[in-house]
Amino acid sequence: MIHESAMIGKNVTIGKNTIIEEHVSIGDNVSIGNNVTIKANTQIGDNVQINDLTVLGKGTSTNKKMARKPSTKLDPLIIENDVIIGCSCVIYRSVLLKRGVFVGDLSSIRENVAIAEDSIIGRNVMVENNTTIGKRVTIQTGCYITADMEIEDEVFFGPCCSTSNDKYMGMGNFVLQGPIVKRGAKIGNNATLLPAIVIGENSIVGAGAVVTKDVPNNKTVVGNPGKTLK
Amino acid sequence: MIHESAMIGKNVTIGKNTIIEEHVSIGDNVSIGNNVTIKANTQIGDNVQINDLTVLGKGTSTNKKMARKPSTKLDPLIIENDVIIGCSCVIYRSVLLKRGVFVGDLSSIRENVAIAEDSIIGRNVMVENNTTIGKRVTIQTGCYITADMEIEDEVFFGPCCSTSNDKYMGMGNFVLQGPIVKRGAKIGNNATLLPAIVIGENSIVGAGAVVTKDVPNNKTVVGNPGKTLK
Amino acid sequence: MIHESAMIGKNVTIGKNTIIEEHVSIGDNVSIGNNVTIKANTQIGDNVQINDLTVLGKGTSTNKKMARKPSTKLDPLIIENDVIIGCSCVIYRSVLLKRGVFVGDLSSIRENVAIAEDSIIGRNVMVENNTTIGKRVTIQTGCYITADMEIEDEVFFGPCCSTSNDKYMGMGNFVLQGPIVKRGAKIGNNATLLPAIVIGENSIVGAGAVVTKDVPNNKTVVGNPGKTLK
Repeated sequence: MIHESAMIGKNVTIGKNTIIEEHVSIGDNVSIGNNVTIKANTQIGDNVQINDLTVLGKGTSTNKKMARKPSTKLDPLIIENDVIIGCSCVIYRSVLLKRGVFVGDLSSIRENVAIAEDSIIGRNVMVENNTTIGKRVTIQTGCYITADMEIEDEVFFGPCCSTSNDKYMGMGNFVLQGPIVKRGAKIGNNATLLPAIVIGENSIVGAGAVVTKDVPNNKTVVGNPGKTLK
Repeated sequence: MIHESAMIGKNVTIGKNTIIEEHVSIGDNVSIGNNVTIKANTQIGDNVQINDLTVLGKGTSTNKKMARKPSTKLDPLIIENDVIIGCSCVIYRSVLLKRGVFVGDLSSIRENVAIAEDSIIGRNVMVENNTTIGKRVTIQTGCYITADMEIEDEVFFGPCCSTSNDKYMGMGNFVLQGPIVKRGAKIGNNATLLPAIVIGENSIVGAGAVVTKDVPNNKTVVGNPGKTLK
Repeated sequence: MIHESAMIGKNVTIGKNTIIEEHVSIGDNVSIGNNVTIKANTQIGDNVQINDLTVLGKGTSTNKKMARKPSTKLDPLIIENDVIIGCSCVIYRSVLLKRGVFVGDLSSIRENVAIAEDSIIGRNVMVENNTTIGKRVTIQTGCYITADMEIEDEVFFGPCCSTSNDKYMGMGNFVLQGPIVKRGAKIGNNATLLPAIVIGENSIVGAGAVVTKDVPNNKTVVGNPGKTLK
């Protein structure tokens, strides 16, 4: 079920029951699993691996109650060379996965997200829209990366971290802003980051900490509420 | 692969490799993705959108060790008009999704759950059995909504909240009861709610709080263990 | 799409669009759903139930930045009698699921994991590699079980617990070691366990606790950081 307008490179293997829609382009030496759906206009580079049951290039949808209406016009999903994507992932339109990015099984990445070279998005990670993730970042299994967030190069998130971008929780009187995590910061597992806080360069957030204020560079914060160690 | 006993309305689009079992009924203007399974007796209204790789109307199963045996007799799954369901969801029998409900990708809703009009179930949310969710409720990405829980109208759960219903953790000497969250309450991201506690109307639970006792109406609770602010 | 080298027992039902690769063996009275992929060499016993959209026997993959390179040689996935596996699961090669194990929907189990008789792996649970799980263990929905972890018999994990195995968060100067949870211990929902700690026999970790040190046998620990109650 490959649409006749799709452009497929050399040495591409395509699994069973896989659907490739119109104007998809796929480079050389790409491997695609079973039951995959690659939606219209998705662009895939060379040496890419896409595992079973993944959906690439999903559009957005919305219901009556949602604050933010989806963009009506979204760019295609672009997947650069050497990217690996797991099983049962859902990746939206207007996402850019740069060279060497790894996306684990059961992960989802929403629209208007860019992830830079060689970063790791673990299994079961959810990335919301309008977020940028730098180079060589590790986001371990089960993290929730909220919308409107900035993650600089070489940041490390341990498993199950939670972030948020809405100080007033749906009351609508706050400009949505996720946390800003500066270069080289390390966040321990199951930590909680509040909206709009800044985690400084090379700072460390302890496992289970609840960070309610900005953390300066090169500091360690632990506890609930998070306190900076001397 | 549409069973001959299924009733399909006007202007319905059905994706590739989708399986529709016996006695399913589908209204008008419905869009169904690829690799979807709609199990026997499921009832779907008008203007419904079901995305790729979703399973609707799953029965229950159990192993030797499980405390609660599944009901042998379950009603069909009912999906009312204007509902949107994401990719890779699993929704069980005996669930009622009322008009305008939105269910994000990779979510799962177990049996004997009712979700009222226009509520949002975010991506990767797990809802357990025997729980009721009111109107215009928002449950953000990655929340865990336990069994035997009551969520009233206009409640807001931030991402990654966790709830539980078993005080003695599998020892069997406790009537299972999840938290009761009253109208308009707002729960911050990654908060933890213990079994059987009541969160009062319009109360606020801070991000990362661990709520071990009832919270009166119009109060704010933060910290671990959660303390009510004056 | 059943490979001619696969060995299929008596009274086996196989859903639509399901792919069974070379040298798979399947026992008697097995039920397999729609859109399932069973990869090469997987061995399945009698009375097993595998639900829709699940992938069995996945190999590992890696990118440039990952610390641990995958084993090049992995044993097949072995599933013993009476095992039940949900929808949209991903289970890797070199996993052993012993008799009567239950795996919920949307769960994933990585390579070199053994799970003993009658244990329950809840929905949306992620189990990392090189971990052993004993008999009659309950791991509730949404838990993250890290790599290099030992869970003894009859342990109970409430929902959404988080564990980690890397004290220095990717800096590479620590032998990776997950927590060790002794027989009969009970972990409350959304608790956080740090690397290499030991939770003693029959001890209790409160909901939302952050456990940074070993817990002796028969003790209860609560809070952040976790403190042992007298």
